[in-house]
Amino acid sequence: MASINENFLRLQTGYLFSEIARRQQAFRQANPQAKVISMGIGDVTEPLAPAVVEAMKRAADEMGRAETFRGYDDGGVGYEFLRQAIKENDYACRGVDLEIDEIFISDGTKCDTGNIQELFSLSNVVAVMDPVYPAYVDSNVIAGRAGNPTGNGRYEGIVYMPCTEETGFVAEPPDRKADLVYLCFPNNPTGCVATKDHLAEWVTYARENRAVILFDAAYEAFISDPDIPHSIYEVDGAKEVAIEFRSFSKSAGFTGVRCAFTVVPKALKAHTADGRSVDLNPIWNRRMCTKFNGVSYITQAGAAATYNPEARKQIRRNIEIYMNNARLIREALTDLGYTVYGGVNAPYIWVKTPDGIGSWEFFELLLNRAQVICTPGAGFGAAGEGYIRFSAFGTPRSVSEALDRIKKSM
Amino acid sequence: MASINENFLRLQTGYLFSEIARRQQAFRQANPQAKVISMGIGDVTEPLAPAVVEAMKRAADEMGRAETFRGYDDGGVGYEFLRQAIKENDYACRGVDLEIDEIFISDGTKCDTGNIQELFSLSNVVAVMDPVYPAYVDSNVIAGRAGNPTGNGRYEGIVYMPCTEETGFVAEPPDRKADLVYLCFPNNPTGCVATKDHLAEWVTYARENRAVILFDAAYEAFISDPDIPHSIYEVDGAKEVAIEFRSFSKSAGFTGVRCAFTVVPKALKAHTADGRSVDLNPIWNRRMCTKFNGVSYITQAGAAATYNPEARKQIRRNIEIYMNNARLIREALTDLGYTVYGGVNAPYIWVKTPDGIGSWEFFELLLNRAQVICTPGAGFGAAGEGYIRFSAFGTPRSVSEALDRIKKSM
Repeated sequence: MASINENFLRLQTGYLFSEIARRQQAFRQANPQAKVISMGIGDVTEPLAPAVVEAMKRAADEMGRAETFRGYDDGGVGYEFLRQAIKENDYACRGVDLEIDEIFISDGTKCDTGNIQELFSLSNVVAVMDPVYPAYVDSNVIAGRAGNPTGNGRYEGIVYMPCTEETGFVAEPPDRKADLVYLCFPNNPTGCVATKDHLAEWVTYARENRAVILFDAAYEAFISDPDIPHSIYEVDGAKEVAIEFRSFSKSAGFTGVRCAFTVVPKALKAHTADGRSVDLNPIWNRRMCTKFNGVSYITQAGAAATYNPEARKQIRRNIEIYMNNARLIREALTDLGYTVYGGVNAPYIWVKTPDGIGSWEFFELLLNRAQVICTPGAGFGAAGEGYIRFSAFGTPRSVSEALDRIKKSM
Repeated sequence: MASINENFLRLQTGYLFSEIARRQQAFRQANPQAKVISMGIGDVTEPLAPAVVEAMKRAADEMGRAETFRGYDDGGVGYEFLRQAIKENDYACRGVDLEIDEIFISDGTKCDTGNIQELFSLSNVVAVMDPVYPAYVDSNVIAGRAGNPTGNGRYEGIVYMPCTEETGFVAEPPDRKADLVYLCFPNNPTGCVATKDHLAEWVTYARENRAVILFDAAYEAFISDPDIPHSIYEVDGAKEVAIEFRSFSKSAGFTGVRCAFTVVPKALKAHTADGRSVDLNPIWNRRMCTKFNGVSYITQAGAAATYNPEARKQIRRNIEIYMNNARLIREALTDLGYTVYGGVNAPYIWVKTPDGIGSWEFFELLLNRAQVICTPGAGFGAAGEGYIRFSAFGTPRSVSEALDRIKKSM
């Protein structure tokens, strides 16, 4: 008898963004004339840079000619031309020296942050920031590291590190020993960033506890403050304790194109139960060779083109559009008397609901009164209750209309 | 302390095709003048159909304009336009009626066949054909279902179903009860196909044992015999017991573009330990929402274009090129006195090594004498020992040169 992985039945409600889509659709069916504006899901809206489009069209043409056709991306971990571009443009320029076979190209950070836990035994204790991007917890629930739900969206086996007004929305290393620590900076959902000192504290913690940090830097392109590190490897010693995830989704508008990468340094090790150390780089490579077959050549050609000087300018302009949206959202909500965080080095604005209203209740209120979709903070974890997240992705026009509606109706 | 998933350490040697690539590279370094011809990995060589290239270029252009830009593929399981095309062109025309939300678009059958086991508890007994595509076993080893290796490339926890000359290279339902049965027809590596009666036997087995069949039909496009089923759902009752995997890789030359799909029928159930039945379709959907973020819009536009009448003709011509190669390989090797299987309804030719020479030994012999790469049968499992696999993917010119060399040197 085929028996199911019952961990799936432990997942609480649907995947957050599917749940929001469901509610949005229900509202639209009940109110067919309403023009709903989504500031919920963090999905980009500006088109791809022309240089990227041209690179992908050229690559498509190459695939149509026998002499330039490409089949499997050998090994499935990315073309050298793209890994080389990443090495130079994302790391070397910040003083971080990587070898190209420490860089693994993939089709998304959601996939990589979901799959990375496979490298580790089920006995590892997982710590997450709370609130947090739900896929970190959900992938560990499915694997069986989370244990039973405790009723408030949490699980007995996960260590939650509350990121609240009191902590400045960063996570202090926990009292309980954690083996795998998911950190996300610039943070989704709070928009908070980590200073170099804060990351150094975490690197020290990981070294002392032989823990591994899973560092999600998908939003690094939105950092404007020159003192904020873009990579955890800007901290000395981090290569021995951290895996870093990056994406072209939010930086270059690739949510519909699908390209990301993960850095697994050769200096990084985990341990067997009897204390032998094992290099993680070849193990991730083995995982990718076995269960993945590489990213489209056309996509990789497009991703490499994001580093062209012309494309960089175009992409920079798109980021400025989003960050200008973020400023407008911050200002409008502050004027309305809301307490507002984030939105300076990150495309997310984290807003305290007034009068202690619950997150989902405020979500419904905002949808019904202003026909605006936000993301309920509680969807990111128990410590997100009483907050909502606004995404700055959107056209300036739709953001401005949404803010007008909020001013009038809330 | 971060502890490693020690199941990775149970994997025997590297991933088969990485190992072949490694040996090929070593040979090339030692023999820089040698012109090695690869008939090893099953990678296509004919360029994409012009209609597909044009569709992808149009899609890239759409992504470069604000009014047609697309971000996340909502839900991440595929655009309706592609799922509809699959429903009609792959299934309805063969009398199989699917709903579009039974079809999940992905970036590859290797990913899907590797990930599908996550739906099932670790206590399920896995049965595989032997020889078999190595990713089925390896993904179960990593998950912890295989137990310890037994020394001959096998694992104590896996049920191997020998597919040999004696069985006509198909697998008879095993005596030991299996919960998850991986079947691959047309078969990789043997090139063998299953009749409808044979599949019906398996459907009966699965129904009687409440097992789930994981049916890999990645090579269905190569079937020329009109009596051979292309889908397991052509057998009555299969929807209640089988998941089917399909790919655009080999049919439409998408190995470098990455698009595939998996069918999880709504009638399919697995069971909890206490005997409740659980629908698998929403569980796979939840898995995909949580750990995957959809396939590139450009890729999906290209995949949908493979169903255009003009593209179908172009793709059919490519398949004829490969199947003509297969015929030439069969004939040449038969003339040389080898015993040869497959290569009629599948792009793989399964060849018995002469005088009981081991697979890897013959691989080295062929590489050194003819500078031709094949795939050692033993790499697909213990029952593949004493065989090698030739792939019919290649240009007619390189195949013909390889055969000339084999005639001269072997």
